[in-house]
Amino acid sequence: MRVLGIDPGLNQTGYGVVVRDGRQLLVLDAGLVRPGPASTRIEERLAALYDGVFGILARHQPGALALEEVFSHGRFPGSALWIAHARAVVCLAAAKADVPVESYAPATVKQAITGYGRATKEQVQHMVGVRLGADAPRSADVADALALAITHLDAVGSVMLSAAKHPAGRPPVPQTLRPAQGDK
Amino acid sequence: MRVLGIDPGLNQTGYGVVVRDGRQLLVLDAGLVRPGPASTRIEERLAALYDGVFGILARHQPGALALEEVFSHGRFPGSALWIAHARAVVCLAAAKADVPVESYAPATVKQAITGYGRATKEQVQHMVGVRLGADAPRSADVADALALAITHLDAVGSVMLSAAKHPAGRPPVPQTLRPAQGDK
Repeated sequence: MRVLGIDPGLNQTGYGVVVRDGRQLLVLDAGLVRPGPASTRIEERLAALYDGVFGILARHQPGALALEEVFSHGRFPGSALWIAHARAVVCLAAAKADVPVESYAPATVKQAITGYGRATKEQVQHMVGVRLGADAPRSADVADALALAITHLDAVGSVMLSAAKHPAGRPPVPQTLRPAQGDK
Repeated sequence: MRVLGIDPGLNQTGYGVVVRDGRQLLVLDAGLVRPGPASTRIEERLAALYDGVFGILARHQPGALALEEVFSHGRFPGSALWIAHARAVVCLAAAKADVPVESYAPATVKQAITGYGRATKEQVQHMVGVRLGADAPRSADVADALALAITHLDAVGSVMLSAAKHPAGRPPVPQTLRPAQGDK
């Protein structure tokens, strides 16, 4: 299965396409979509981001698009509203390309990649490189995108493994993929 | 000039198309786009909203789309993140239809419609009806959308009037269209 992970932002959006080949994870493509400078009208930046993501979806035809969850509880800084704008057009591109969106809490991604739900950005960057048998991505946004793709591939792999062990019932959710307490 | 006002939301999005005919404002179309129940996948709801708004743009070909501003300062409840998702696909539809987006602060809209920047929803609803020579819209979301369209038509009208009076320079921003103090 091929998974596109995306870390959306209006300044730059990180993306990474990862595929599982046996026990090995391979990066097919990774980089940044830049929706244009802050002086550009918001609707034009959103259109540039949409077109960029739709192009990646068309090129790689992934089985899923992995994103960070939206937290609807609590209060957020205003900048989160612009990230939500970027996230929305990424979701729309997925719908138009007929690719399902899967969301993971940040702590779930950190736990899946580093084994620790409160890992730093640097730890995630480092461990993404280790998991992919490559140098750590220099961009934290690309690393986060790849981490999301790996998290979803791990989740799907674990479920398939559990399904093989428990053919009669629904497999249990892997412990490492449960969100950390108090992080919702 | 024909203006489409939109009050975005994932449960329902209010819209209203208003045109100025001499001194009279006329509603060409108004109603709600419903992007589907909360049980539907978010990407499908965003696609339904996008298609709905794009259809309205194609049908009426307005000269502008008027929305509420995004406030990037301060902190917001989590529900604002979902409104931002809806707002983003409305902006994208405008970009794809080549219609410029104009944004107004809520206090600016209330001031323009009722003469008071802290008017209640009911006052806005009532005065929208008065301005349009019609019954007050029953839906507050439709009323807000129509209020945005009227606010933009007033702003454009004032600027044209001022430009006629001040042909040499850029006309001053009308006092009634400045955001209220402390409301940013």
